[in-house]
Amino acid sequence: MSARPADRMDAAEADREPRAVEVEDVERLRQALDEARQRHLRLRADFENARRRTAREHEAARHESRRAALLPLLPVLDTLERALAAGSTDPDFYEGVAATHRLFVNALREAGVEPVESVGRPFDPQVHEAVATVPSGRAAPGTVAREVRRGWRLGDTLLRPAQVVVVTAPDDGD
Amino acid sequence: MSARPADRMDAAEADREPRAVEVEDVERLRQALDEARQRHLRLRADFENARRRTAREHEAARHESRRAALLPLLPVLDTLERALAAGSTDPDFYEGVAATHRLFVNALREAGVEPVESVGRPFDPQVHEAVATVPSGRAAPGTVAREVRRGWRLGDTLLRPAQVVVVTAPDDGD
Repeated sequence: MSARPADRMDAAEADREPRAVEVEDVERLRQALDEARQRHLRLRADFENARRRTAREHEAARHESRRAALLPLLPVLDTLERALAAGSTDPDFYEGVAATHRLFVNALREAGVEPVESVGRPFDPQVHEAVATVPSGRAAPGTVAREVRRGWRLGDTLLRPAQVVVVTAPDDGD
Repeated sequence: MSARPADRMDAAEADREPRAVEVEDVERLRQALDEARQRHLRLRADFENARRRTAREHEAARHESRRAALLPLLPVLDTLERALAAGSTDPDFYEGVAATHRLFVNALREAGVEPVESVGRPFDPQVHEAVATVPSGRAAPGTVAREVRRGWRLGDTLLRPAQVVVVTAPDDGD
């Protein structure tokens, strides 16, 4: 649409008018385009961050699900181990239960659960929980003398600390 | 930047030149802006879809992790149940193992694992696996007579089908 000039003055105005609008338009459009591009870049960055966060959360969710499923089974194994430790007068039945225990530990290993090493190791507050101490002249102070409850790891994390008895220096009275 | 006219002809040309460029610019910019906005909308839709897909995948990952952690424990329970079914001459030891068994089933329930109902129910190929048939005049044909291996569900899905013996119509010879 071109302006139809009536006289010189009008023609000059008519020429200037659309040009002014277009210059303004170009500026406005350039700015809008710039904003749109910036917005797009920000959204893309958000998307990328969300993707990375999701991958991390995904892994954490997997781990937490395994943890939640396996944790209640540890006291079951404790009870089985206590029964086996008490012994039995029925060797056949005892052997059947001992076989169950071996299967149990293997199934836990298969699920990524490994026992914490304790007896004879230096006490490690990251994986051990001291429930008592015992003076000893044979073992080095600060080593684990006995395990009261077994500890378990799940992959790189601790599922449950081992409850242990820790060696102290022998009493002067000994 | 305004053109400085030398004469009428030049002035008209000078006026037309930048205008033509600007009109083109405006069109080009409008198109670019439109494209940028379309691209933004598509990216936003992709983002939204990814978010929904992620939530679904997250839930599936949780479920699959629980499944993978719990499935290897079912044969452990089978072995324990076989030992208990065989009985023992040592009542104290037997009771300790029976207590372990109750804890085990409770721990599985806590983890969302429930036994499949079988005996006396109509055979259901969704949750039952027929390993044998038995003719019977008492029970209705197609019902489950006996469970050879217990089946388990995890939430709404089947963790392991029950292996069952299914009732058939009595033999003519009976």
